[in-house]
Amino acid sequence: MIEIITTGGTIDKVYFDAKSTYEVGESPVGELLREANLTVDIRVRPLLRKDSLEMTDADRAQIRRAVQESATERIVITHGTDTMVETGRALLGIAGKTLVLTGAMLPARFRSTDALFNVASAITAVQLLPPGVYIAMHGRIFDPRTTRKNVAENRFETLAGD
Amino acid sequence: MIEIITTGGTIDKVYFDAKSTYEVGESPVGELLREANLTVDIRVRPLLRKDSLEMTDADRAQIRRAVQESATERIVITHGTDTMVETGRALLGIAGKTLVLTGAMLPARFRSTDALFNVASAITAVQLLPPGVYIAMHGRIFDPRTTRKNVAENRFETLAGD
Amino acid sequence: MIEIITTGGTIDKVYFDAKSTYEVGESPVGELLREANLTVDIRVRPLLRKDSLEMTDADRAQIRRAVQESATERIVITHGTDTMVETGRALLGIAGKTLVLTGAMLPARFRSTDALFNVASAITAVQLLPPGVYIAMHGRIFDPRTTRKNVAENRFETLAGD
Amino acid sequence: MIEIITTGGTIDKVYFDAKSTYEVGESPVGELLREANLTVDIRVRPLLRKDSLEMTDADRAQIRRAVQESATERIVITHGTDTMVETGRALLGIAGKTLVLTGAMLPARFRSTDALFNVASAITAVQLLPPGVYIAMHGRIFDPRTTRKNVAENRFETLAGD
Repeated sequence: MIEIITTGGTIDKVYFDAKSTYEVGESPVGELLREANLTVDIRVRPLLRKDSLEMTDADRAQIRRAVQESATERIVITHGTDTMVETGRALLGIAGKTLVLTGAMLPARFRSTDALFNVASAITAVQLLPPGVYIAMHGRIFDPRTTRKNVAENRFETLAGD
Repeated sequence: MIEIITTGGTIDKVYFDAKSTYEVGESPVGELLREANLTVDIRVRPLLRKDSLEMTDADRAQIRRAVQESATERIVITHGTDTMVETGRALLGIAGKTLVLTGAMLPARFRSTDALFNVASAITAVQLLPPGVYIAMHGRIFDPRTTRKNVAENRFETLAGD
Repeated sequence: MIEIITTGGTIDKVYFDAKSTYEVGESPVGELLREANLTVDIRVRPLLRKDSLEMTDADRAQIRRAVQESATERIVITHGTDTMVETGRALLGIAGKTLVLTGAMLPARFRSTDALFNVASAITAVQLLPPGVYIAMHGRIFDPRTTRKNVAENRFETLAGD
Repeated sequence: MIEIITTGGTIDKVYFDAKSTYEVGESPVGELLREANLTVDIRVRPLLRKDSLEMTDADRAQIRRAVQESATERIVITHGTDTMVETGRALLGIAGKTLVLTGAMLPARFRSTDALFNVASAITAVQLLPPGVYIAMHGRIFDPRTTRKNVAENRFETLAGD
């Protein structure tokens, strides 16, 4: 059993025409996975609907608690990219759990998006990696302790010296 | 020959992850049409990139001028839905031209969107209707003089008494 | 009210992995239209599931009967492209009905397909045209009496001299 | 650097309207990956265009040779599902290479398909697993020595007793 905890971010953004705004909405991750015809047992748990820039210490404590209280050992967390590294660091040191954070640069509801690739990558990585915290983005696996989001180039990279 | 003049609106909205905002961008209408394998001759002309709520009288005058100066008699105008009716009225009375306004409630770049249906409907209507100004939305053809956008229900409707 | 009668053809083809074959299946037209957010009243009626090359005189008689017995005056018929013209001719001479045939070169279930454009075009044309039989393909409206499918170039064209 | 060798199968199937048939065509895997915005270095190498039921011993020898001669240690092989297990077994015993086979139950060009999920899963697994041969399907990783395709249920499963 794999649990997917959704917390918001670009991956979950929907468009509200009535207000001409673009906000975090109900996560489409469960729907995305239906067409992948998976035989691995997955449970999606919606936890937060936050832009990653608005994620507070209290939110991170809530995610940590959700992970610790979960009965599953393998957990994927979907999250906004801007502070994914910070949340990853806030989840360090939980014994016996493999945690993989992922997200997307373009909303999952777009016709062209990196969302499905990243979620598939995270679901695979969470089954193969030993306990610890990881980030799965752009086809690579990162260690949150030595990673940053390069905002100008819109991608994750390993810190120099690593 | 059919000309498509793009002026912005939800149909053209793209997502900028760097700024976590959602703005009018380069119109995807030309790209949408490529896969439709059309044999009718179409030219896409990008004119404005405006949210329809920000459309001014000067913008409408510019659209009217573009229509009058166009060598083609059959013109589709993509436009935001909030003030599509107003722009339609501002284009009344141009002799010898069939004008069809259309747009979308969800961006054309979404996986699920009304954009392609509406553009296809407008391209068809502009070939079949006599000179005048029309709105093609939700599978119906409206007269801008007797139409309004029902914001609460997010759809166009004919004014009572019509 | 517009009725859509589905008869099969490429537009309705699905892929059966178990048999590694590709066959006419349940028509996806109704599903396609759901995301277009239409306000025009549409009823989809599945009639046949035939490759257009296998369409017989008896099938065409059945389609003609279905059209004549329908309570609606505006009917779209989805059909394979290879013999769409022949079926169009077999439907000539029904008083008081506007009939528009359409289909697709690529199955509607493909990510990139002409199906939605063509169906949108047909739904629009059937509302605007006087009684008679028409073909809506590639953004154009054809008269089946003077049209043929150019198989080599995979498109419909008006017969020379028309 | 990861190499992706494409050999055909359902994942690569395209539709030829001219012949109303559905055949293995140019692999869409490279195109699929472009929108995933990967930062891992990937090279796609088209090798065969075969239905997996038509894959011969000579074909498998050719795939084995391609793997052995490749300069890369991490190789994904896209393949039809019917004989993916057999090809996996034919690739056993190559020292120092991690090989992951994957494919799809529905063509990658479909709007709804398992292709992208499976390829993403394979690209992730090939980076995390030690040398050996694996199958990535439906979100799980299989060992070809103890796996079979359950044709009736259209999915891979581990042999009883494993």
